[in-house]
Amino acid sequence: MNIITPKPSRAGSVDFVDGHTRLYGILGHPIEQVRTPETVTYELRRRGINAIVLPIHVRPEELDDCIPGLMKIANLDGLVVTIPHKKTITGHLDRIGPLAEISGSASVIARSKDDKWVGEMFDGNGCVSAMLRRGVELAGKHVFLLGAGGAGVAIASTLARTGVAQISLQDPDAARSADLHDRIGKWFPNVVISRNAPSLDEIDVLINASSVGMLDASRIPIDIKEIPERVVVMDAIMDPDRTRLIALAEECGCATVYGREMLDSQIEVVSDFLLDSRDLLAADIKFP
Amino acid sequence: MNIITPKPSRAGSVDFVDGHTRLYGILGHPIEQVRTPETVTYELRRRGINAIVLPIHVRPEELDDCIPGLMKIANLDGLVVTIPHKKTITGHLDRIGPLAEISGSASVIARSKDDKWVGEMFDGNGCVSAMLRRGVELAGKHVFLLGAGGAGVAIASTLARTGVAQISLQDPDAARSADLHDRIGKWFPNVVISRNAPSLDEIDVLINASSVGMLDASRIPIDIKEIPERVVVMDAIMDPDRTRLIALAEECGCATVYGREMLDSQIEVVSDFLLDSRDLLAADIKFP
Repeated sequence: MNIITPKPSRAGSVDFVDGHTRLYGILGHPIEQVRTPETVTYELRRRGINAIVLPIHVRPEELDDCIPGLMKIANLDGLVVTIPHKKTITGHLDRIGPLAEISGSASVIARSKDDKWVGEMFDGNGCVSAMLRRGVELAGKHVFLLGAGGAGVAIASTLARTGVAQISLQDPDAARSADLHDRIGKWFPNVVISRNAPSLDEIDVLINASSVGMLDASRIPIDIKEIPERVVVMDAIMDPDRTRLIALAEECGCATVYGREMLDSQIEVVSDFLLDSRDLLAADIKFP
Repeated sequence: MNIITPKPSRAGSVDFVDGHTRLYGILGHPIEQVRTPETVTYELRRRGINAIVLPIHVRPEELDDCIPGLMKIANLDGLVVTIPHKKTITGHLDRIGPLAEISGSASVIARSKDDKWVGEMFDGNGCVSAMLRRGVELAGKHVFLLGAGGAGVAIASTLARTGVAQISLQDPDAARSADLHDRIGKWFPNVVISRNAPSLDEIDVLINASSVGMLDASRIPIDIKEIPERVVVMDAIMDPDRTRLIALAEECGCATVYGREMLDSQIEVVSDFLLDSRDLLAADIKFP
């Protein structure tokens, strides 16, 4: 036979994944729009962990069949959970944190040292942490919260847990506004919760947790022309960076907290929870 | 309140994973030693695909519970399967290729356009492709195959399918040697299959598919001092690169094919199968 001489090996390799890589994911439907793979993978690598956060696309009708299988992947240590799976996921957990209990939803789940799955709702944590880091005092304050959807529930319960004195709610959907009102009333009897629009002179903090103003810098979630200078204004919307509400607040001289600050805070808190849980028994995991 | 001014966003990001990334995996136990994540990810990226091949660690007793869940991940398009899952995985497939049928095992599974899972055994393909690419003629030849384990079965059935005339088997484990003998006899009645050691003067190709010589360049899987110059010698072992068998063959002037050439060929064939299957109905998938 005429044997051709060997060519050098063509097998190239990448340096961002190998047999030791620990897996995390963000579970959602749809999935293409998520940014968690880029940002939380970056944060885990910054901390020296050989890990990757994957987009995991699971359709709502398949979630209950998929999750038990996912949990059997021995090198999968945790999942960020997004729309529309946050409620359903709680049925698969061995232990949930207080904010998951109150909201009936979890945004992050992690495997504990004793191979249990523990979850908590962190969606309000980024908002509250961003304000606390900026020196906004929340204990004893009166917060006017616009939006009682998923983000509103998470933010309201986190605010209540942080010790605000009073929360006034505004949401055009009366049913979910009533539901949030009842949840806060039940879990935080010391917090005054109201569905009546307050005078802006009474409030300390105004938070937009509705989607009004998202991708549209001309819209504003509340019919106001002016905000008292002493009110701190936060908008949970990240796109645009400077919403119409933030712009108005800044024109009025108010201190403002941007949606992107919420994201920064959340990446740190979520990474802490994912990594710390690995070394703790489920019963010993502390919720932030 | 004393509000601190905002800091610029700290959220960094990585560029090798995002919401559009398609997922592949290598399924095994243990998993840390695998090289497929680095090499097949590289090959897929070289072809312009936003994809990543993950290490997926599943314990044998959990495989049957895990696989149905994994298959529900809508952006997971395929899996490479390694020890000890190659046999078990076949029970989860909608269609298997001829070499998977013969060996009772699959080494790669892929999702078809109509959301079915199709699998084939490619472990012999790398070996045979590496030889064909080097100009080794196999049709009508007599091959002496050392080792009737998983690799031996895969290589023998691929050789038989490629049209070799005769295969002589050697394996100290009589039971698996007999099993391989019977499989080849059943599926390829035109191939002469023998469990008697041939004279080296009768053979055209000598292939080591046993683990003798792995990680130990002093060992050789057959008791010989010399190999006729006309025999082509291949060793499926990749570490060391130049096994004792290869060294002896080269001392005798034989043409040799190295284990790493098998790996190179396999990466291409596996990548083709994984990518092509996405666009085909399960019934239309062609096996190489």
